[in-house]
Amino acid sequence: MDSLTPANADTRTALLKRYGASAIPAVGPWNETIASLLDHRSVRGYKSDALPAGTLETLVAAAQSAATSSNMQWTSVVAITDPAKKKILAEIAGNQKHIEQCPLFLCWVTDMSRNAGISEAEKTEFKVMPWLETFLVASVDVSLAAQNAVVAAESIGLSTVYIGAMRNDPERVAKLIGLPPQCFVLFGLCVGYATDHARGEVKPRLSQAMIVHHERYDDSSAPAHREAHDEEMKKFSSRHELQAGTWTQRVLNRLGPMSSMNGRERLAATLAALGFTIK
Amino acid sequence: MDSLTPANADTRTALLKRYGASAIPAVGPWNETIASLLDHRSVRGYKSDALPAGTLETLVAAAQSAATSSNMQWTSVVAITDPAKKKILAEIAGNQKHIEQCPLFLCWVTDMSRNAGISEAEKTEFKVMPWLETFLVASVDVSLAAQNAVVAAESIGLSTVYIGAMRNDPERVAKLIGLPPQCFVLFGLCVGYATDHARGEVKPRLSQAMIVHHERYDDSSAPAHREAHDEEMKKFSSRHELQAGTWTQRVLNRLGPMSSMNGRERLAATLAALGFTIK
Repeated sequence: MDSLTPANADTRTALLKRYGASAIPAVGPWNETIASLLDHRSVRGYKSDALPAGTLETLVAAAQSAATSSNMQWTSVVAITDPAKKKILAEIAGNQKHIEQCPLFLCWVTDMSRNAGISEAEKTEFKVMPWLETFLVASVDVSLAAQNAVVAAESIGLSTVYIGAMRNDPERVAKLIGLPPQCFVLFGLCVGYATDHARGEVKPRLSQAMIVHHERYDDSSAPAHREAHDEEMKKFSSRHELQAGTWTQRVLNRLGPMSSMNGRERLAATLAALGFTIK
Repeated sequence: MDSLTPANADTRTALLKRYGASAIPAVGPWNETIASLLDHRSVRGYKSDALPAGTLETLVAAAQSAATSSNMQWTSVVAITDPAKKKILAEIAGNQKHIEQCPLFLCWVTDMSRNAGISEAEKTEFKVMPWLETFLVASVDVSLAAQNAVVAAESIGLSTVYIGAMRNDPERVAKLIGLPPQCFVLFGLCVGYATDHARGEVKPRLSQAMIVHHERYDDSSAPAHREAHDEEMKKFSSRHELQAGTWTQRVLNRLGPMSSMNGRERLAATLAALGFTIK
């Protein structure tokens, strides 16, 4: 690539935003799709504007086009537009107002009920069901699908934010949206048009030197790179008046005290109550 | 959208390929990114052609731009190009030759070691680590990241296939690539240029009527839609000389007998051996 072309300048700007000046990776292939991926940010403020006709169908078609392990298609989506339901979901999530604001809230379901139903209908025992492997691969399937929906949404100018806090009370969520046994909302997703204020800035990530390993895992340089990233995040945090200055401080706050789990330490018991066997 | 525009015709063709004639969903927003997502297929045959300079960096930048829960960044990637290593990985995966063929094989690692290291360095107990919730959210993080890399790869004309069979023997994989405790290859990913023969046809998915629920989960029409999809898959299978004709037959074959797990029923024990506590 010619280093003087505008495309190259855009690329470098996108990488600068994502990694900070101290950790810009090599410039590789580039196009509009990749630019859109790099420009992602999670958005927590939405206009009430309606979505274009057919948006849900397009997002789901993108989601279902993701790879699915052995074609088992473990994903279901419950689309919520009802304000009363969104209000309750916002409350479950610790009063995340953007769940109420966004015109479309998607519940992404790890759905082992659909395939379990085939076991019953065909009178064949499914020996593969009650294992951690199967629950895990189903959850990976759902995640790949949801991420494709996010990419599609952002490519048409919509914003999104994943809501992991559906797992604060999976039983209440399941009851609210009428899930059968062996179904569980892995996460929610707000979809809508960002308010001008809410779109914010691209958030820096750890240097590729900490993430990528060549042929063998080697984290010997990680402490130095983490220190550099902490400096980058300190600047980002001060621009946004965030309390935890460095990335290290965020990790300490999030992974140290049990209180930050908001009850999610009960997940294994909750999944059992929802009809999953995970052995 | 004008139903006579070429864009609309392309859209309908893409939806027809993905869902079959009996289940085409409503046409919504559309662009090149969405077209690329819809056109996905998993590819199991690769040319030896090298990748463009900077491809790995671009794929990783896309991956790291995906949302990451609470910014904990649980993902690592081990990039494998060494033919000897790829040969062993292909063998672990039950002799999947495409792992040897592809110029770049990515091991996507659920990496709880990096953040555990911060606990040690900062002499702070991380009470949030040893829970199913945390392992699950880390695996979701890795999946979102990997899917962004897949989208980026396909947008520049590369093909991919996820390799879940890394979980046939996670301990051997971990040893081969030198993973520390609390690291585990969730799945692999072949990246390269498809051979002309291997790119194949877009694989049909279940009707959106089976996947999407409005406000409440409702699977009352699922059996009828499954029957229609079985007919669609029977045609697809006969075009590709596949043994399991219908989708239902695939589900029966894959989820019925323990033999189809290839030892993955041991995953919980294996993860414990790899240093994870998942309670």
